[in-house]
Amino acid sequence: MPASFEVAVTAEGFRLGRLRTPHGEIETPVFMPVGTQATVKTMLPSELEQIGVSILLANAYHLNLRPGADLIARRGGLHRFMGWSKPILTDSGGYQVFSLSPLRTVQEHGVVFRSHLDGAECFLGPREAMEIQRNLGSDIAMVLDECPPWPCNESTAREAVERSIRWARECRAWKDRAAAGPGALLFGIVQGGSHAALRDECARRLVEIGFDGYAIGGVSVGEPEPEMLRAVEASVPALPEDRPRYAMGLGSPTQILEMVARGVDMFDCVLPTRVARNGVAFTPEGYLHISAGRYREAEGPLQEGCPCPACRGFSRAYLRHLFNTEEILALRLVTWHNLTFYLRLMGDLRDAIRHNAFAAFRREFLARYKAPATPRSFERFRPRPPRAGRKPPPESLP
Amino acid sequence: MPASFEVAVTAEGFRLGRLRTPHGEIETPVFMPVGTQATVKTMLPSELEQIGVSILLANAYHLNLRPGADLIARRGGLHRFMGWSKPILTDSGGYQVFSLSPLRTVQEHGVVFRSHLDGAECFLGPREAMEIQRNLGSDIAMVLDECPPWPCNESTAREAVERSIRWARECRAWKDRAAAGPGALLFGIVQGGSHAALRDECARRLVEIGFDGYAIGGVSVGEPEPEMLRAVEASVPALPEDRPRYAMGLGSPTQILEMVARGVDMFDCVLPTRVARNGVAFTPEGYLHISAGRYREAEGPLQEGCPCPACRGFSRAYLRHLFNTEEILALRLVTWHNLTFYLRLMGDLRDAIRHNAFAAFRREFLARYKAPATPRSFERFRPRPPRAGRKPPPESLP
Repeated sequence: MPASFEVAVTAEGFRLGRLRTPHGEIETPVFMPVGTQATVKTMLPSELEQIGVSILLANAYHLNLRPGADLIARRGGLHRFMGWSKPILTDSGGYQVFSLSPLRTVQEHGVVFRSHLDGAECFLGPREAMEIQRNLGSDIAMVLDECPPWPCNESTAREAVERSIRWARECRAWKDRAAAGPGALLFGIVQGGSHAALRDECARRLVEIGFDGYAIGGVSVGEPEPEMLRAVEASVPALPEDRPRYAMGLGSPTQILEMVARGVDMFDCVLPTRVARNGVAFTPEGYLHISAGRYREAEGPLQEGCPCPACRGFSRAYLRHLFNTEEILALRLVTWHNLTFYLRLMGDLRDAIRHNAFAAFRREFLARYKAPATPRSFERFRPRPPRAGRKPPPESLP
Repeated sequence: MPASFEVAVTAEGFRLGRLRTPHGEIETPVFMPVGTQATVKTMLPSELEQIGVSILLANAYHLNLRPGADLIARRGGLHRFMGWSKPILTDSGGYQVFSLSPLRTVQEHGVVFRSHLDGAECFLGPREAMEIQRNLGSDIAMVLDECPPWPCNESTAREAVERSIRWARECRAWKDRAAAGPGALLFGIVQGGSHAALRDECARRLVEIGFDGYAIGGVSVGEPEPEMLRAVEASVPALPEDRPRYAMGLGSPTQILEMVARGVDMFDCVLPTRVARNGVAFTPEGYLHISAGRYREAEGPLQEGCPCPACRGFSRAYLRHLFNTEEILALRLVTWHNLTFYLRLMGDLRDAIRHNAFAAFRREFLARYKAPATPRSFERFRPRPPRAGRKPPPESLP
């Protein structure tokens, strides 16, 4: 495989990298906003570029159900379809099959499951996962893995690891047959639940197969944060220095700092975009719940000095009004702000690493930032499958 | 009153005007996008400027209930609150009191009604309507009027006219006491239902009182289109040449052409923004229902040659996908397109008038444009009062 990743460990001991993909280079550590259905909710691609987004994540599972990976291929691939010219990483669908499908049967060569949309029977195996991602034209494809629920005992975790490794090998073989897009990268996924020895073994065996990068999967699936940290710590040591490491589905700003400190390079999380739609804004002090009564007449912006349109143009009082009247502009503005917050955090963090000042940066950030991993209003709104064509969009009044 | 309106009647016989307001000049004929709750749904003020919007409409009734006109005044007025530096016309609230409130009692000096949000008892009279609009800092305030439902017999229509004239006189007196904002304009509203003689009488008596402009109210309240046209035709002749004329709540592209042909200068309508949120796009040929199956793989834009971001960046297939997956970006993009369509129509129409080519322009537009006044999906989604804090915004999936 070509040397697509250049990484330097600084004097202070942290990683700064550059990953080449068919659609351009990414500086790491990097945060990838989530564009599940071929859109980062509420945002235009040009707006994402404006705030410095260098790579997006999209979901093979969702896009293959609607509108279909074959349709996207016929329309010129995902980049052209959604108007995004920079890199895209695609999830293989493993996680969604195991978390969304009401019924599934794990077989030797894949999973039989029912669509969460209409109950239609579907099959996803390593070959299908690779073909879907090839059809999408992703820059970084993920192997198909089995993501067991949390908690999960050692024998279940071992079974999932064995199956995931077998599928990973089949994905690698598929790629070696040169059926992948030109230059597309393939990442392996370390499973093993909370079992450190299993994590280590899974990582070693994936490295033997050989991938362009390695993800840590099966984290952020409901486990307490310390357990999540230990799962990452158990996965990292066996991974090669010269390949990118990606913590899937992570995380909060503090979790990202902790992961970067442990040598992780890539992150994706719905947190900034999803909480935005519940009126929760990120600030250097923690969460700001914009619909709170105390912002009724608040003149200042969400965050002083933030360059996003929400902070440059509008008061907290106005944003609160937009939320309380269920205006779509509220969702846009807070999403824009939260992504700006995340992208600036990553930029500042890379600068700090570059100047051997990451330890101080992390200490100062954590001293100021007071927030749980998820805001109090987050848990109230669990993701639900959308029901197509049933719920009309919010209406204006006469 | 200062001569705030310059108007020329072209050789061809159509009107081209320029209206001065405290926040700048407006070229007429003009379309005013509706920003009921201090936002044109889904759009940033800067985006409205980009597509050439020169004046917005906002609703005194809604803004006084939430967040309160006094609060907006303390925050520096509506322009500053919503980040819009160009003119704003405010509806007085009369129409909303008569159409939204579940209970109301019309009295000599105003209306007692219950808020459609929480049932709280409120009172709106001419003085209150003027004070609310002064607090908002509107450039063009509307008198309080009584808008009777359609159909309505002559004696009910006459009662509403008498009351509307009395209230209009009180609004004018309030303004003469110099309590209005500096330079703010005040428009009278012609009522009279479908009764031509009443319309004419109402217009004459309002002109005797004297206003900066004259609106035609009580149209587009459910009556058939020919009846609406006759109500406008009955109202216009008595209005002075040198004052702007505004058809409230109108209309479709064809209705606007008909009204312009009859000497009307100003228009506002929720049609382009509301139908957008139901997936209906305006094109020179009529409505395009973007979720239709025939656009599943359609490569072209909503409208060839349209300069809006939806048409410049995305295929019909992608927009259809966004609608079918209930993505907020869909609502943004079609709203942006529809407002662009309306603003370009008005620009083209003014150019045509300027070059004595309006009659031909109208003929050509109508020959190509095949659509009813409201698209078929419009009636399915009647406006409903929002319920604050109940309905979570759409969620993404894991």
